[in-house]
Amino acid sequence: MNHTDCLLCRIVNGDLHARKVIETARIIGVMNDAEPFSKGHIVFFPKRHTLRLNDMDDQDLAEILVVIKRVAAAMKLENYNVLQNNGSLAGQTVFHAHFHLIPKWSDSEGLKYGREFRRELDHGEIYQQVQEALARLAS
Amino acid sequence: MNHTDCLLCRIVNGDLHARKVIETARIIGVMNDAEPFSKGHIVFFPKRHTLRLNDMDDQDLAEILVVIKRVAAAMKLENYNVLQNNGSLAGQTVFHAHFHLIPKWSDSEGLKYGREFRRELDHGEIYQQVQEALARLAS
Repeated sequence: MNHTDCLLCRIVNGDLHARKVIETARIIGVMNDAEPFSKGHIVFFPKRHTLRLNDMDDQDLAEILVVIKRVAAAMKLENYNVLQNNGSLAGQTVFHAHFHLIPKWSDSEGLKYGREFRRELDHGEIYQQVQEALARLAS
Repeated sequence: MNHTDCLLCRIVNGDLHARKVIETARIIGVMNDAEPFSKGHIVFFPKRHTLRLNDMDDQDLAEILVVIKRVAAAMKLENYNVLQNNGSLAGQTVFHAHFHLIPKWSDSEGLKYGREFRRELDHGEIYQQVQEALARLAS
């Protein structure tokens, strides 16, 4: 089920050109020529259109990291980040679930993120809620 | 093969207490009580000790996102980031490969990262290198 107004579906369909790094039965990886954080920034996505990671097919989820691993190994990367954003608030701008492989060649290149930890947070309530929700899903 | 000096192996072995959110045959997810970016920040890791994503067992890679999906669904998350850091330069501080699930409840909570794109970069050479390396690995 592809969407003609979706950038990544258009790559899947061949309607939009992108430099393909890898393609398997389920997954495509393309150079991020549009908005790279660093040289070699690659975007991986399932051919099947979904919005978020939690909408993704289990088989697509099972395959995508193995594909990313293969490419990271081919690139002989030692320092890199894998980032996946869900929802506008979290920075998702292309609404077809995808993963970024971002080489970190130096301090000034690649992903830069804040290290402001919030140790005062109390996870007690959310921990309880997740445990109960997982138990319901399992039963 | 567990390492007694590794924080996450000590959780696997039961030598260090952590609030377990989920445990499967291969994967554990624990509340990030030590260095949370937001409420409900969870860290997922394979029981088998490895340094980086590219050292991870394919079966661990295949399972970990399915486990993360299950938890994200249980939490009914709409906005969240999944982040995985490899190497000191990329921000890895615990040297047992792991994935962060970071809820983004509001602009001021959760993962904050720079959006400075480097459109002047030329990916031509690295694209060629990766293509050649992947072809060698496949042959």
